[in-house]
Amino acid sequence: MNYVFSDKISGLKPSAIREILKATADPDIIPFAAGNPAPDAFPVDEIRRITADILAEDPIAALQYSVTEGYTPLRDAVKKRLSSQHSFKEGADDLIITSGGQQAAELSCKVFINEGDTLLCESPSFVGCLNSFKSYNAKLAGVEMDDEGISAQALENACKSNKNVKLLYVIPNFQNPSGRCMSMKRRKEVYDLARRYNFVILEDNPYGELRFSGEDIPSIKSLDTEGRVIYSGSFSKVIAPGMRVGFVSAAPEIISKIVVCKQVSDVHSNILAQMICHRILTECDFEAHIARLRDIYRRKYGIMAAGIKEHFSSRIKVTEPEGGLFVWGELPEGSDMTAFVQTALERKVAVVPGSAFLPDDTMPTNGFRMNFSTPTDERLKEGCEILGKLTKELYGE
Amino acid sequence: MNYVFSDKISGLKPSAIREILKATADPDIIPFAAGNPAPDAFPVDEIRRITADILAEDPIAALQYSVTEGYTPLRDAVKKRLSSQHSFKEGADDLIITSGGQQAAELSCKVFINEGDTLLCESPSFVGCLNSFKSYNAKLAGVEMDDEGISAQALENACKSNKNVKLLYVIPNFQNPSGRCMSMKRRKEVYDLARRYNFVILEDNPYGELRFSGEDIPSIKSLDTEGRVIYSGSFSKVIAPGMRVGFVSAAPEIISKIVVCKQVSDVHSNILAQMICHRILTECDFEAHIARLRDIYRRKYGIMAAGIKEHFSSRIKVTEPEGGLFVWGELPEGSDMTAFVQTALERKVAVVPGSAFLPDDTMPTNGFRMNFSTPTDERLKEGCEILGKLTKELYGE
Repeated sequence: MNYVFSDKISGLKPSAIREILKATADPDIIPFAAGNPAPDAFPVDEIRRITADILAEDPIAALQYSVTEGYTPLRDAVKKRLSSQHSFKEGADDLIITSGGQQAAELSCKVFINEGDTLLCESPSFVGCLNSFKSYNAKLAGVEMDDEGISAQALENACKSNKNVKLLYVIPNFQNPSGRCMSMKRRKEVYDLARRYNFVILEDNPYGELRFSGEDIPSIKSLDTEGRVIYSGSFSKVIAPGMRVGFVSAAPEIISKIVVCKQVSDVHSNILAQMICHRILTECDFEAHIARLRDIYRRKYGIMAAGIKEHFSSRIKVTEPEGGLFVWGELPEGSDMTAFVQTALERKVAVVPGSAFLPDDTMPTNGFRMNFSTPTDERLKEGCEILGKLTKELYGE
Repeated sequence: MNYVFSDKISGLKPSAIREILKATADPDIIPFAAGNPAPDAFPVDEIRRITADILAEDPIAALQYSVTEGYTPLRDAVKKRLSSQHSFKEGADDLIITSGGQQAAELSCKVFINEGDTLLCESPSFVGCLNSFKSYNAKLAGVEMDDEGISAQALENACKSNKNVKLLYVIPNFQNPSGRCMSMKRRKEVYDLARRYNFVILEDNPYGELRFSGEDIPSIKSLDTEGRVIYSGSFSKVIAPGMRVGFVSAAPEIISKIVVCKQVSDVHSNILAQMICHRILTECDFEAHIARLRDIYRRKYGIMAAGIKEHFSSRIKVTEPEGGLFVWGELPEGSDMTAFVQTALERKVAVVPGSAFLPDDTMPTNGFRMNFSTPTDERLKEGCEILGKLTKELYGE
């Protein structure tokens, strides 16, 4: 039969990153295009021991239907951790466990956005969430960034020139794909604009724990006095992404709507994974674990940064992230970015074309994303050398 | 701030069942309202052993990001099993792993339904899926049932009287909440109507493996010659619901849209759970396991059926399921069903009011749902005695 798919889905394309990743299943390709946490960052021994304990002590609880809100001891542990980071206020906020940070973003969009409503976001931004918003027919309006994060002036302009602005989606810490960190000043300006133009902020913080240099900056949520910020996080980058465990902290009114939405989406998240996360948070030395991750990513970023400095043409601009997994490169004005990415792939290095991260992917961009968490140290060096050589061929020293 | 939630969410209420279940967290209440598989049905020893093996042999694969389509060996094993049941055709169909059967229904709706399109369903039907469809602003049109399942005549009338009929949602085997099984004749009529009125059938089969008497009836999917049927199933009732692993088999064009939708929803389902399901399917004697489950539910249903026969007023009509987890009761015409459920709860037996399962919950109903999988054998007897006594007080012998 001829299928007539829904309007919201018809225009949706598979994530460009995932498609590139498929093309690069070839183990010869150096995976600068991925976004996977480093395998040696997983607390494998702890997961092995804890899983055995749970299945010995309380197997039925780990296997039976559970409540949509999430495993209560995990919710309590996350609340406690977020409280210490000022991203959860006892009495003012509630918290739900989600199936990864992706579901946190999807459900936040679903509870607020009518088809055609405007959702503002950084440009470039995380393509997985942008596509999620598009799948609800949100009208995406990308806002340009500078080194301090989203531009306050451009954000205000976007508020004035778009109708029905309901949500702003931002990744303040080590943003995907740019690696940039939003300054404190900018966070305050963004929050003030949210008050002035009456929109809700969805603050997505999957990478915040992975700061390997500089000082932590308080979350936008910590500035929130009126329940205007939805804060989401995930265990994907600090425990393991295959478990699909994330969370949302927000005003109880918002959380109760997200609960209803999640109930009709997947009932609840895998309960064994929630129990594992709970025990890792509460029974292991989680701070030591995080410190170990920071060491790993500091080292890996250091290798990439050194490789860029040594090999890249000076005409390539790159960000200098203080955490997270990504570096954003920019080719000189007027370059053919697609051809660059294609040639890099032919030389066995996969990077993601910047166009994949644009709210409107027909806009021009010279950017590309490089990931330093997935490749081995050896291949990080090798990849930088290959890419660097290409940049020098194209743009000189 | 004052939140303005999306239209599709504003009208959505938490599942009535879940609310009743919360009220009955009290262990004194006999849980005829639940829908949990019997805890002794879980293959706990196998899960314990297999999980340890996976985390010993291949921990990174079990913890890293994976592909949206699902774990390939599990997909292959499910395809093989469905092929043997004629619900998957090699070459004509494709298959995706979902986060439980609930997500299978949600995504099937999302890829086809524009806001306001008509989605037909049995009345009564599974409230979790009905709410999921409502969360996309589908216009639900319930179709009455008889002992053979959904009425073909009423279905045709609904096709004529509703605009933009895109999908029909049915649970042909041991339907939730009615326990009814759709006859072969009716399955053929439903498929013919789908061809005639050009809609897609979403055939949800979470209970099909749990037949404890009578003969298996071929799926509607097995009649499908033109890719008009989406078939969904789940491991929730045959392995463990807390794992949240289900699947959808459909034409590749449909599956590719569901993949894109799932990618933006939760990226992929918990990968360890998928690996566990795969090994249980392929390394254990799965047929023997299913036979054991059938024995458990045959016994439990037998206890409830005997209790109903012994204690209930003859004026209460009940269905006589040949599988699944549920019996549907109907009070005499003109009864106050809500008062009945309330009084039962005061006497410590929780049943679900039939109104919870109506596509339009303002319609009258005398029905109520009883579950025989969750209570212990002892409490099954006790619950039937209490409910029976109440029916006799209200309606005589």
